[in-house]
Amino acid sequence: MKLATLRSSRPDGQLVVVSDDATRCVSAGRIAPYLQGALDDWEAAAPALEDLAAQLDAGAIAGQPFDPAMTHAPLPRAYQWIDGSGYLSHLERVRSLKGSKDAELQSVRPLMYQGASDSFSAPTAPIVVPSDDLALDSEAEVVVITGPVPMRPSRETASAAIRLVTVCNDVSLRKLVLDDLQNGFGFFHAKPATTFAPIVQTPESLGSAWRDNRLHLPVRVEVNGTLYGQPNAGVGMHFDFADLIVEAARTRKLAAGTIIGGGTISNPHDETLPIKRDGIGFACIAEARTAEKAKYGRARTPFLKVGDRIAIGAIGEDGRSVFGQMDQNVELLD
Amino acid sequence: MKLATLRSSRPDGQLVVVSDDATRCVSAGRIAPYLQGALDDWEAAAPALEDLAAQLDAGAIAGQPFDPAMTHAPLPRAYQWIDGSGYLSHLERVRSLKGSKDAELQSVRPLMYQGASDSFSAPTAPIVVPSDDLALDSEAEVVVITGPVPMRPSRETASAAIRLVTVCNDVSLRKLVLDDLQNGFGFFHAKPATTFAPIVQTPESLGSAWRDNRLHLPVRVEVNGTLYGQPNAGVGMHFDFADLIVEAARTRKLAAGTIIGGGTISNPHDETLPIKRDGIGFACIAEARTAEKAKYGRARTPFLKVGDRIAIGAIGEDGRSVFGQMDQNVELLD
Repeated sequence: MKLATLRSSRPDGQLVVVSDDATRCVSAGRIAPYLQGALDDWEAAAPALEDLAAQLDAGAIAGQPFDPAMTHAPLPRAYQWIDGSGYLSHLERVRSLKGSKDAELQSVRPLMYQGASDSFSAPTAPIVVPSDDLALDSEAEVVVITGPVPMRPSRETASAAIRLVTVCNDVSLRKLVLDDLQNGFGFFHAKPATTFAPIVQTPESLGSAWRDNRLHLPVRVEVNGTLYGQPNAGVGMHFDFADLIVEAARTRKLAAGTIIGGGTISNPHDETLPIKRDGIGFACIAEARTAEKAKYGRARTPFLKVGDRIAIGAIGEDGRSVFGQMDQNVELLD
Repeated sequence: MKLATLRSSRPDGQLVVVSDDATRCVSAGRIAPYLQGALDDWEAAAPALEDLAAQLDAGAIAGQPFDPAMTHAPLPRAYQWIDGSGYLSHLERVRSLKGSKDAELQSVRPLMYQGASDSFSAPTAPIVVPSDDLALDSEAEVVVITGPVPMRPSRETASAAIRLVTVCNDVSLRKLVLDDLQNGFGFFHAKPATTFAPIVQTPESLGSAWRDNRLHLPVRVEVNGTLYGQPNAGVGMHFDFADLIVEAARTRKLAAGTIIGGGTISNPHDETLPIKRDGIGFACIAEARTAEKAKYGRARTPFLKVGDRIAIGAIGEDGRSVFGQMDQNVELLD
């Protein structure tokens, strides 16, 4: 089952069920007006939404054309956004840039931070920066949305709590990362609004692409039409989503609608940009720059600038974007 | 105007208007079923709620008895909870304990962290800890709830965005603070569910107790019936709430319903526990312990343990609790 949120005058938008081929959609208003409402009552809402999806796919309901440009983030605002760090090669590559104190690689327990969840960015909304000198980077990630999770859950409980899957762009202002981390209170100013892909999907509906609590699909990142990377999110994910949920709930329960990020997707390799059509590359610019420093003695790929365009999406076996594309221009604050 | 949220089967509870003497309340359901709804549409909702409050206070509406024990947090869940650090003497006293890297006192820009906002604790709900050896501490703070704030607001815009005021207990697991900060990603496991007082109030309705973007009232902290502190929240608050909102919105806008904490209330003095009836004392145990270490060479006041009871409330000139009391027992997770 695929779900999306159309933009509306209401801050939570309007929940729609999307056809399996992502061409049509139908309002889910009679079941739940918005996604958080469905997550609050998932046991009742999910079967009704599945039924609506089946009718839409069978043609019993005509629906309306599905236009990703009309979507907001699936949850335009959420009660919790926790970003983990599942990929060790990402940490390894950017550790020096981040000024992190962890002398050993964090391979025993995943790092995670509490992100801002009050106003996410729509898939095609501009990324608005207060100035053009903050080393804007994008970080392509897989995320899950959970049901309620008790404190200290088992891995099984954590895995069973995964309701929906999609991808996001954890927008980062690299120049502020060091400041944030050195003040000792963690990420804050360096992490403005996160962007989400138009469509969320149940794990079951992803077939073999979802297994072992991981999404086994390449996530493609293009900057101004140039391929920067297409690492496979199922490769090198040392901590899976069950691990991340268990860790997040170590000292507290998690409410329904909690979004957990798997961290910047990163596959081990020794490539640098530009990559070939079948290359792996990078899901964030900071990693590309680190690889360049190692190979050439200096970083060559610039961070994103005002006017740049960044497109991110998970790619299915048929070559199509599974959750729809994030496609954003960088703009300066008025 | 005073507002509160009664517990109900719905996750957001039920919004009520509370009489000025806090003895009666009336459902605000016909205006907004829950507080976030009112904040989403404040320009329309606030005058209607004020009108209802006036009718309740005039006796034109009988209402029902107001029982703080039936309340949830005013926002049982919120889209954003940002905790600042406005009181320099708190930072000064606990800096060594926290392992913070800031060599100089953070007097130029306030520190802040993104807190968990998915499931706050009701004023009289137990504080549930996963084990009894995590150095449980309470931190009494003033908080404001804001309307929407644009990125890079002026101090005037920030101040005007303050919709409601109350106090909270920013529950902390001191033993995990160092872990959280040393991993470089900031507070996470050390900050379980925050507790809020039963009542929120508009700044205007606080009279002279609210001025200069600060709450000028003592906030009393009692552990097992013993007075630990009653520092005045208007004293020593180096960064006021306008400063904190401006800082929070440096690289992003803030959505309506954002909660901003002023940091652990702390007044400069050289007292140690026990304090006299007119003493100042401390709003968190860590500060009391630091003062003891300085005076006696070792900390004497233990952190909170399972079975302890912690009560916190802001005290008005008439000696009554302004926002109602937080009164919680510490319990071990089942």
